[in-house]
Amino acid sequence: MTQPPRFMPVVLWIPSFEGMTRRLLNSLDRQADKQPSNGILPVWVKITALMQNFAVLMLNCPDQKGIVAVVTEFISRNGGNILSLEQHVDPQANEFFMRVQWDLTDFVIPKEKISDYFGTLIGARLHMRWQLYFANERLRMALFVSKPAHCLYDILGRWHAGEWKIDIPFIVSNHLDHQEVAQRFGIPFHHFSMNAENRQDQEQKQIALLQQHHIDFVVLARYMMIIGRPFVEAFSGRIINIHHAFLPAFIGAKPYHRAYERGVKLVGATAHYVTEALDEGPIIEQDVVRVSHRDSVEELTRRGGDVEKLVLSRAIRRHIERKTLVFQNRVMVFE
Amino acid sequence: MTQPPRFMPVVLWIPSFEGMTRRLLNSLDRQADKQPSNGILPVWVKITALMQNFAVLMLNCPDQKGIVAVVTEFISRNGGNILSLEQHVDPQANEFFMRVQWDLTDFVIPKEKISDYFGTLIGARLHMRWQLYFANERLRMALFVSKPAHCLYDILGRWHAGEWKIDIPFIVSNHLDHQEVAQRFGIPFHHFSMNAENRQDQEQKQIALLQQHHIDFVVLARYMMIIGRPFVEAFSGRIINIHHAFLPAFIGAKPYHRAYERGVKLVGATAHYVTEALDEGPIIEQDVVRVSHRDSVEELTRRGGDVEKLVLSRAIRRHIERKTLVFQNRVMVFE
Amino acid sequence: MTQPPRFMPVVLWIPSFEGMTRRLLNSLDRQADKQPSNGILPVWVKITALMQNFAVLMLNCPDQKGIVAVVTEFISRNGGNILSLEQHVDPQANEFFMRVQWDLTDFVIPKEKISDYFGTLIGARLHMRWQLYFANERLRMALFVSKPAHCLYDILGRWHAGEWKIDIPFIVSNHLDHQEVAQRFGIPFHHFSMNAENRQDQEQKQIALLQQHHIDFVVLARYMMIIGRPFVEAFSGRIINIHHAFLPAFIGAKPYHRAYERGVKLVGATAHYVTEALDEGPIIEQDVVRVSHRDSVEELTRRGGDVEKLVLSRAIRRHIERKTLVFQNRVMVFE
Amino acid sequence: MTQPPRFMPVVLWIPSFEGMTRRLLNSLDRQADKQPSNGILPVWVKITALMQNFAVLMLNCPDQKGIVAVVTEFISRNGGNILSLEQHVDPQANEFFMRVQWDLTDFVIPKEKISDYFGTLIGARLHMRWQLYFANERLRMALFVSKPAHCLYDILGRWHAGEWKIDIPFIVSNHLDHQEVAQRFGIPFHHFSMNAENRQDQEQKQIALLQQHHIDFVVLARYMMIIGRPFVEAFSGRIINIHHAFLPAFIGAKPYHRAYERGVKLVGATAHYVTEALDEGPIIEQDVVRVSHRDSVEELTRRGGDVEKLVLSRAIRRHIERKTLVFQNRVMVFE
Repeated sequence: MTQPPRFMPVVLWIPSFEGMTRRLLNSLDRQADKQPSNGILPVWVKITALMQNFAVLMLNCPDQKGIVAVVTEFISRNGGNILSLEQHVDPQANEFFMRVQWDLTDFVIPKEKISDYFGTLIGARLHMRWQLYFANERLRMALFVSKPAHCLYDILGRWHAGEWKIDIPFIVSNHLDHQEVAQRFGIPFHHFSMNAENRQDQEQKQIALLQQHHIDFVVLARYMMIIGRPFVEAFSGRIINIHHAFLPAFIGAKPYHRAYERGVKLVGATAHYVTEALDEGPIIEQDVVRVSHRDSVEELTRRGGDVEKLVLSRAIRRHIERKTLVFQNRVMVFE
Repeated sequence: MTQPPRFMPVVLWIPSFEGMTRRLLNSLDRQADKQPSNGILPVWVKITALMQNFAVLMLNCPDQKGIVAVVTEFISRNGGNILSLEQHVDPQANEFFMRVQWDLTDFVIPKEKISDYFGTLIGARLHMRWQLYFANERLRMALFVSKPAHCLYDILGRWHAGEWKIDIPFIVSNHLDHQEVAQRFGIPFHHFSMNAENRQDQEQKQIALLQQHHIDFVVLARYMMIIGRPFVEAFSGRIINIHHAFLPAFIGAKPYHRAYERGVKLVGATAHYVTEALDEGPIIEQDVVRVSHRDSVEELTRRGGDVEKLVLSRAIRRHIERKTLVFQNRVMVFE
Repeated sequence: MTQPPRFMPVVLWIPSFEGMTRRLLNSLDRQADKQPSNGILPVWVKITALMQNFAVLMLNCPDQKGIVAVVTEFISRNGGNILSLEQHVDPQANEFFMRVQWDLTDFVIPKEKISDYFGTLIGARLHMRWQLYFANERLRMALFVSKPAHCLYDILGRWHAGEWKIDIPFIVSNHLDHQEVAQRFGIPFHHFSMNAENRQDQEQKQIALLQQHHIDFVVLARYMMIIGRPFVEAFSGRIINIHHAFLPAFIGAKPYHRAYERGVKLVGATAHYVTEALDEGPIIEQDVVRVSHRDSVEELTRRGGDVEKLVLSRAIRRHIERKTLVFQNRVMVFE
Repeated sequence: MTQPPRFMPVVLWIPSFEGMTRRLLNSLDRQADKQPSNGILPVWVKITALMQNFAVLMLNCPDQKGIVAVVTEFISRNGGNILSLEQHVDPQANEFFMRVQWDLTDFVIPKEKISDYFGTLIGARLHMRWQLYFANERLRMALFVSKPAHCLYDILGRWHAGEWKIDIPFIVSNHLDHQEVAQRFGIPFHHFSMNAENRQDQEQKQIALLQQHHIDFVVLARYMMIIGRPFVEAFSGRIINIHHAFLPAFIGAKPYHRAYERGVKLVGATAHYVTEALDEGPIIEQDVVRVSHRDSVEELTRRGGDVEKLVLSRAIRRHIERKTLVFQNRVMVFE
């Protein structure tokens, strides 16, 4: 009897990037149970291969008969195995939306040509707008923050614990308060002092910095400056802000003060993509927490802060997982 | 050995009006366990006595030292047993608030003179505004409704099941749709057709009807007419409305349509006292429910409807229990 | 110019049975806006036609490549228009699940032959278990209740307001308390007094009654009797119960008493399909509400009651909409 | 005209330790608005004085007439100003509970003698058990953690941002994984490798370490070792654990795996004081989050993790604020 190859046990860092991944890990777990003497190498190889072989296609087009069948047949006929599929129709706009994810292992079309083939065979004919992603892409996120630090700490904690598959090349702030925190986490810190005179210039420098570092998306983690038009346009649909109120209630400044004065019984937070109209961008996620007449403005701020960091982190996760699709100022958030 | 008096077992309808009541019932339960052969009469007598002997005092005044001690001493020195006490200070307004409830069984001041004594000895001196209630008062509620029926059904179900200690002398509507429902529950139904010409006259008749039946408070259970100034003034602080949105978001008409267009991820409802400014009255209770891009306006309306009826019923309960105190457009809701 | 046909305006009762229906209604609404002078008849005809032309297919089978494509192609190639589709893979069981809904208007396979064709062409080959429903089927629900009435009132209110597309041929109870309520709503009431001796006989009579009236599913709306094995088997997967606790916490009797003693900070409710093992059946829906040390057992019961009725009604809705699929004691609840 | 004293503006770190503090800060804010030219020193002095002059008294005793009046009179007559008061009666145990907080500025009894006087004059006579705290006490918290890091990050973030008024003299772990995190935050890290043989010895060393550093309370932030009896007794009522389930559901190991298998629709977390009976200690705080059949065990773990860290942090806050009182395995959590 030949001995199976033996290796040191290896702890694998497996990003929970995809529902897909979980599916694979689960099957691996079962396999491991059955073949405990089999060493760890084959598992490792298989995961590596699979991790680099998922595709995500998000599309929308005018609704008509047979779209699901046409797209799934395209994938299936070319050797792709559909891992998850979600579709939606907006009846008022008569628009069809779909997110489909498939395993590329046996897919006969090379990755770099999928978009071309899909466009020629299906996309153009059905007047589709589509985006294609691959699972092994690691997004680069820039973090903007002013003085309140709770969202910053939550994001850094999750990032440091490996909860998200992203890089954070730097932190930007209009204050120096959190320079030390950035240093503790080993992340470069860029300070841009902002005032009425230098704002446009400083923003131009920020845009240049983001582009130079190939930043994929920007998170405003309680960054208290309004983003100018050129910045918004340069990163359209890729800037996530957290507003400390349940929008559209309390648009603008000092929402907790106004919530206190209005005597509301819940305070909330809203994560949204930034557009030119302040606090009007498409909403990704919202949540609330109960308050009472006993709670001062300071207490509303503290309770709201817990909601803000949760809501922002959920929105970031959805964005990283390529599960958000914006249409007419509304965000489809796929499961 | 003398035989204890024996009576037929009696099922008592005990309103859950007060935390106090629960306390008594619990002690009675324990007593009943110990003396099962003792008949039911002593219990009945004791409950009756106690039920008619609670007082609730709600007050507010400029904050200063020693208010709690002065009030509790007044109650205690005169033989009252404090059953619950809650106080609150609004630091911005520098105003003190208090709700105290005590057992009148051994209280030496007669019920009808308590307010007079309290005012002379304490209230006037400390510039208090106060309200005194007694536990055996049964409130009379008028129910206004238009077409949506979910709040109406919820209220009638709770009332019919004895959940609230109130009378509903009649239902008012500007439509005839729910006349049959009123009949099924044996409640008189008054129809007031309303249009631009007759509105003021009709409201005068409504006010007269309410006053003639000694109505204590009015519930607008999705009543889609704006209440005029004379009506609001006649029942100031005694009209509860349910707005089908999380105020101050979506003030005014068609909130679910606007929530859909804004792409919010939660819809809510707000119960508030009616003031002249539409949807601006002091908020008693709010809650929300999660929705997604998959939900049409119709589905938002349905999910929101479940929240509306819950929120309105919670607000009614708080009002009946004398746990709401309005100050500067904010509602203190005592526990 | 010929005048379009004119009819009296007709109020249509349109069940909100399907996301599909909403989609159609929305398009109809828009059409109506454009042609207000056109009378109501064409709309009516169109709705009737469409309402009878939806099919829902729910299936599960061992997971493998290409299932989605095969099923959607079957529908699409035969003239069906897919209205919604949701799929799921249980990686631990390696099982594939799918719910797909399509418009039958131009579908070339007759309704009565769809199941046969699907089985021959796809189902048998892929080892599927499947269920096929049509949108115009109106389910018949039997309502069982004991003494607590809040769920009963909530269900009758929703049914009476037309929220659900069901018939309630009768109410069954082991007590006489709610006979009058049944009469108020015009529903026959069957009383079965139950004790240790007659229980098996009475249950046989209940089963006969249910079968005689062609009951599709049974709702135990706080029915405090344990259902025997023959009953469960006769209506397997078609009996919904509401348990007044957040299962699996507080299985069995007096959950609110035990929740009080344990000092929990939330109480909840669980709607589940009934199986032979008490309180162990597959869970359809759960929710909770916050409580505190101030709340007595009575107050926990009251707050929990609000959650019970909401949770049960949500579960009933999901069942009526054919959105629940049981597999290995877990319920898939499709969106 | 004499010039008011001028100082450099000073940013004050004001812990939100008490409802009291908020009240004072609010009045200071208003004062600052009125006297902007007045410098910052008087404010500083006043705050310092006040911060050191609050007392919190928590007590319980058999219920009887007049307790509130006796206690409040004791405070008031001796020059204390009551800042907040909450009382509660457990009717089943016939026990009275109270938390009262007062300003010591003009209190005539010296701090170190308050407990003595209160005991002699009131406590002993009414058979009270009581605890007296002063607002300027800064608690010392020991942090125990194993491998999952999300609670650790959340606690360190809040501590570093100054949200809590505590010291964290060291972190203890049975693993080395988080040594680097401790270093980043500048906190000493003590590693105790634990196995069946050395466990009792290691725990003795842990107890010695805690006592040597005058630790006030211990937080088990996902510390996966069972605490032995001597440890529990040495810090009775002062060890807070987070259990990753909604207790009493899923007591013991692997709760998320079991939640997945049971098919629950919500997962939760429970913060409780540690007693000898595993997962049976008195509950401080609980919360839940919605899950579905689509969520794998890994996803339940991730979603649950967000709830765990929130619930644990809320419990810690309540403990620090001296708002928790344990009686018969239930925790009163005052507002």
